[in-house]
Amino acid sequence: MSISIHDVSVPVFVNALRSMSAWLDKAASEKPEADLLIGRLAPDMRPLPAQYQMASDSAKNAVARLAGIEAPSMPDVEATFAELKERCARTIAFAEGIDPAALASGAEREVELKFPNGMGYRFTGQAYLTGFALPNFFFHVTTAYGILRSAGVSLGKPDFLQHLGPPNIRTAT
Amino acid sequence: MSISIHDVSVPVFVNALRSMSAWLDKAASEKPEADLLIGRLAPDMRPLPAQYQMASDSAKNAVARLAGIEAPSMPDVEATFAELKERCARTIAFAEGIDPAALASGAEREVELKFPNGMGYRFTGQAYLTGFALPNFFFHVTTAYGILRSAGVSLGKPDFLQHLGPPNIRTAT
Repeated sequence: MSISIHDVSVPVFVNALRSMSAWLDKAASEKPEADLLIGRLAPDMRPLPAQYQMASDSAKNAVARLAGIEAPSMPDVEATFAELKERCARTIAFAEGIDPAALASGAEREVELKFPNGMGYRFTGQAYLTGFALPNFFFHVTTAYGILRSAGVSLGKPDFLQHLGPPNIRTAT
Repeated sequence: MSISIHDVSVPVFVNALRSMSAWLDKAASEKPEADLLIGRLAPDMRPLPAQYQMASDSAKNAVARLAGIEAPSMPDVEATFAELKERCARTIAFAEGIDPAALASGAEREVELKFPNGMGYRFTGQAYLTGFALPNFFFHVTTAYGILRSAGVSLGKPDFLQHLGPPNIRTAT
């Protein structure tokens, strides 16, 4: 048995984007929003809003490329937590609205990544998803988390994996 | 078409662990190892060696659980870059040594995560891989990267995704 392209993409992205949205609620209750919005892990790394925007891009471009459709344009204009939460919500809505059947042939679909300098990569959908889209997506998700943690927001692993809910079985010891 | 459990696990883990190992070479050439080893993103987050150890655990436990075998024990004793690189290498060797056929039935295999307090989660292999193992693995990979970046090591996205190599096609503009 193997895993459908849908199950390795849409729910993975949606779960993390929902978590990212919730982190902002916790963050806003603990620290000044203006301070957190300029947070970054290194002077030459992008600040919090860009990490949210790039996680959104990574998710919407991945499911769009795998489904062979255009991703909706989302200009990087968000400058408040409310706007970043709305960006997460739009990305989730787009990903969840994709027909799983459109993703079914995504493993063999040719995906081309283009960079502004005219160079790029050409992948099968499968290699693109596992070799680029998932690592790149979690890079930005986790960097956003790290920015909030390093600024003193009291997040923990249950916030990172909030879709799991609390441990729900009693195990043998 | 769908993706095999092997292709969503072993190469994903191995690529990132190889990158993590290479980051330490770059880090050692730029900053004192002793300073980097105590780096962390927040006072209540774990330092660099623990992030490497937890990435290793996450990878080896994932492929072992999906294959229905025991993961090799790797006590968390590493205290130098050389030892962390060796931990990455042992984890890679274990993951690459797993018979893909043993992973083939992993999607439906029941996986139980146990925590010390006697509670836990029970998953299908598929839900475990996409809902827990991959996000948790990349959490520790990216947190290790963030620790090195925040300490001034000159890593970039090509180091995070070094398995891709440089962009290798000329694209239409």
